[in-house]
Amino acid sequence: MLTRIDHVGIAVHDLEAAIERYTGTFGVRLIGTETNVEQGVREAMLALSDSRLDDLVGSDDALRGAAPASYVQLLEPLDGDTPVGRFLARRGEGLHHVGYAVDDVESALESLATQGISLIDRRARHGSLGASIAFVHPRDLFGVLTELVQPARA
Amino acid sequence: MLTRIDHVGIAVHDLEAAIERYTGTFGVRLIGTETNVEQGVREAMLALSDSRLDDLVGSDDALRGAAPASYVQLLEPLDGDTPVGRFLARRGEGLHHVGYAVDDVESALESLATQGISLIDRRARHGSLGASIAFVHPRDLFGVLTELVQPARA
Repeated sequence: MLTRIDHVGIAVHDLEAAIERYTGTFGVRLIGTETNVEQGVREAMLALSDSRLDDLVGSDDALRGAAPASYVQLLEPLDGDTPVGRFLARRGEGLHHVGYAVDDVESALESLATQGISLIDRRARHGSLGASIAFVHPRDLFGVLTELVQPARA
Repeated sequence: MLTRIDHVGIAVHDLEAAIERYTGTFGVRLIGTETNVEQGVREAMLALSDSRLDDLVGSDDALRGAAPASYVQLLEPLDGDTPVGRFLARRGEGLHHVGYAVDDVESALESLATQGISLIDRRARHGSLGASIAFVHPRDLFGVLTELVQPARA
């Protein structure tokens, strides 16, 4: 079901400071920022780049489009009364969730529901970079808030 | 510097129960378990598999060897007085750290030290699956315990 780690979500107090640190120190590339009112966050997606994978797919644009990327997602809450705001108040800055790529988020949700896994989202919704996403409750996953990500290109 | 997300480390109370859940529910593949006395953990590495990447590299073994994989690392402390044991006592089960792949862990450490980033390991040491790894302190990274991973095959 899970094909790779798509991103880690990191809760921060100051989005701009975090973007500056991650791009400056680690050389990751800022793809863009967006505000997701439904999730109560302002967020930035930063892309990691794999030179070996670049070599592998070379100049073939079709292959390049199919080549997986992974991201760091920085999350600043819009206010304290949001999931990320409450996370920061309770635990401070740090790893908030992990997002795994799946081929088909609706069929993944159906499989998990059949297995009795607690879901936060029973249907896919809009995520970062045009992806279809759904969150799985940490309860049955050893405390890990888990996101399923069907990338827009799939 | 960071080329992709290599793994997420998840702290759990019961390694066998966690392995069963992750392999059973998500269809990820158990690569192996090992005890790392230095780090005070018994751990399992579970591989995610990307069918699109498999298609990309096809039957070429050299390419397959170069193709990146990502992992879920499950961590059970050997006892309470270990980093993961203290993490569990303080925060419960959940995301413990993220590991990013780098081409050269020693030069990455040198770069971070030059930039004044707090390191836990000033030199690389032995990690999972024969990798050379080093931990970066969460202090300068918005609360995220961060591992640099130079895979054994590199």
